[in-house]
Amino acid sequence: MNNLNKNHYAVIMAGGVGSRFWPWSKKNNPKQFLDIMGTGQTLLQLTYERFKQIVPEKNIFIITNQLYQELIQEQIPSIENFQIIKEPMAMNTAPCVAYASAKIQALNPHAVCIFAPSDHLVIKELNFVNVMQLALQKATQNECLLTIGIKPNRPDTGYGYIQFVNDVKQNSGPFKVKTFTEKPDLSLAQTFLDSGDFLWNAGIFTWSAKAILNAFEAHQPDMSKLFKAGKKIYNTDDEAAFIDKTYPLCKSISIDYAIMEKADNVFVYPADLGWSDLGTWKSLFETRNKTNENNVIHGEKILCMDTKNALVLNQDKEKLLVVNGVDNIMIINTEDTLLICPLDREQEVKIIVSEVKNKFKDKYS
Amino acid sequence: MNNLNKNHYAVIMAGGVGSRFWPWSKKNNPKQFLDIMGTGQTLLQLTYERFKQIVPEKNIFIITNQLYQELIQEQIPSIENFQIIKEPMAMNTAPCVAYASAKIQALNPHAVCIFAPSDHLVIKELNFVNVMQLALQKATQNECLLTIGIKPNRPDTGYGYIQFVNDVKQNSGPFKVKTFTEKPDLSLAQTFLDSGDFLWNAGIFTWSAKAILNAFEAHQPDMSKLFKAGKKIYNTDDEAAFIDKTYPLCKSISIDYAIMEKADNVFVYPADLGWSDLGTWKSLFETRNKTNENNVIHGEKILCMDTKNALVLNQDKEKLLVVNGVDNIMIINTEDTLLICPLDREQEVKIIVSEVKNKFKDKYS
Repeated sequence: MNNLNKNHYAVIMAGGVGSRFWPWSKKNNPKQFLDIMGTGQTLLQLTYERFKQIVPEKNIFIITNQLYQELIQEQIPSIENFQIIKEPMAMNTAPCVAYASAKIQALNPHAVCIFAPSDHLVIKELNFVNVMQLALQKATQNECLLTIGIKPNRPDTGYGYIQFVNDVKQNSGPFKVKTFTEKPDLSLAQTFLDSGDFLWNAGIFTWSAKAILNAFEAHQPDMSKLFKAGKKIYNTDDEAAFIDKTYPLCKSISIDYAIMEKADNVFVYPADLGWSDLGTWKSLFETRNKTNENNVIHGEKILCMDTKNALVLNQDKEKLLVVNGVDNIMIINTEDTLLICPLDREQEVKIIVSEVKNKFKDKYS
Repeated sequence: MNNLNKNHYAVIMAGGVGSRFWPWSKKNNPKQFLDIMGTGQTLLQLTYERFKQIVPEKNIFIITNQLYQELIQEQIPSIENFQIIKEPMAMNTAPCVAYASAKIQALNPHAVCIFAPSDHLVIKELNFVNVMQLALQKATQNECLLTIGIKPNRPDTGYGYIQFVNDVKQNSGPFKVKTFTEKPDLSLAQTFLDSGDFLWNAGIFTWSAKAILNAFEAHQPDMSKLFKAGKKIYNTDDEAAFIDKTYPLCKSISIDYAIMEKADNVFVYPADLGWSDLGTWKSLFETRNKTNENNVIHGEKILCMDTKNALVLNQDKEKLLVVNGVDNIMIINTEDTLLICPLDREQEVKIIVSEVKNKFKDKYS
């Protein structure tokens, strides 16, 4: 921690709106800014703290929609303005990586960068720090694109999978990646799990700025050209105007689809991170501490009687919430919305949000 | 309606706290003061309007705990102060009847009075008016105690029953009462229903002031003496002080137990009133209009998706309430409390209220 390498950077991607956690997460206060785990810190704060152990604090950048600049400054008072990279509009991860990489390379041509989501859970911090240090070292030495793969413990259909060359002789990795697969169906997910050659794609990447920009040049030449044009403009007063003009010209595609699935210098570190993408209410329920009755209780003034398998969240400090005789339910009480839905139907929240938008415009979303 | 008899009186008993409708009904705003049916009028207002068709408006008295005087004046702006009979403490119905009868007799020795609850539902108003007029006439002519019995349509275990001499020769009634039975168990209730000789006790009584005061003298001599002592004090400035002293000396028992079960001049009019005592959330659910999905929706901003057999009440005009994929549930959202409980377990509300009192004292009850 004392000798953090000044060439090492971390870019935290914090532009998402997290509509699957509606109504807790809303457009003006998305998931990464919430204390989802009830620890007293938001997911963004936890992510930022984690990277402070890996790279120098001033080398941590947060790339996000400009809407969220104030929220970030509130939650991370030590952050300086230049550390917040503002996107003029919501975009997928490829333009976000291309922009941040070009900007950081202009600051430091020897930069080696980690890109990571802002809204995931990592419980095994020591393992995380170790594998990130290995990856930074490897990416300094070789022009390669490194990812982190989570050893799957169930045939989850909500994650992307990474198939790798399971080379037992080379225990520590990284291993060559063969394929990326988007969310599979259940039988395919079971096959993946049984084979032992597949890992969950945690969306955490490590590479030198040079390596990823070369990959963009090879696989996304149009996008590469767009951001190369700003070489002398990054980190000047003209950057915002340049990006306002450039960003809308990009394809809104994911870094996986744009680069990782196409490049042949992709490697993966299998890791045991106590990781969850916290993508759904159910995954939140699974990762949180339970009462004896298998309930997750978040908030004050909640009285559960003869109730089990319930996720009860109460943000309204003035309101008493009494739940009696219920099984398998989520009750989410925010300041302006109350959602009640069986826990095992939480995947319907997306439909609910669209119905609410239909009826009430943007008032509650 | 034009020629209402100035000797006819109605006393509406409005002292209850209705804890079974918690958290909608609370001690500072009990059931009779709520628009339980969603018609725009509270149960008390509906009861008062009903009696305006039967007795002169200034002969309608409301007897209640003095806590509720302001609520009554708000809800019935035309009421005059002398029409509100204030009880210094919560008491059962016998002292309430003894007090009001003694006071009214002092005003008018020829008074004939109806005593009725303030918080019941009567849908068939014409039948109600007709049977009340018959009863007033009968009670003017004979020294008898008249009750209204509802023809049962199911073996309800929540009601008291009246057994009567089912004399087919005398079709219109009233019929002599044989017994009063408190809430029976299911098999006894079924026997009652099958026999055809039992009616539900609606708690609506008609008698001359003289008849009921004579009955008190015969069957409750102590209480009779207590209220006789005030003969010259009723309707003077000293009445409140006299009652403050007298009331605590009474036994807190019901009029059924104190008088009706003991007297032998008790008669009943069977009536079809579209009546419910609205004693439970379930009975409210049963009497209210349902959506196609068999839901009762009360309040604004309620969005039910794939939900059935639900009772959803939202008093918070600022809050959006979204219910998805639930069956058999009650969701009661008041300003300071949210209750969620299966509809078929609504009888547990009493236990819930006592648990809430246990934890939060009187804050939410």
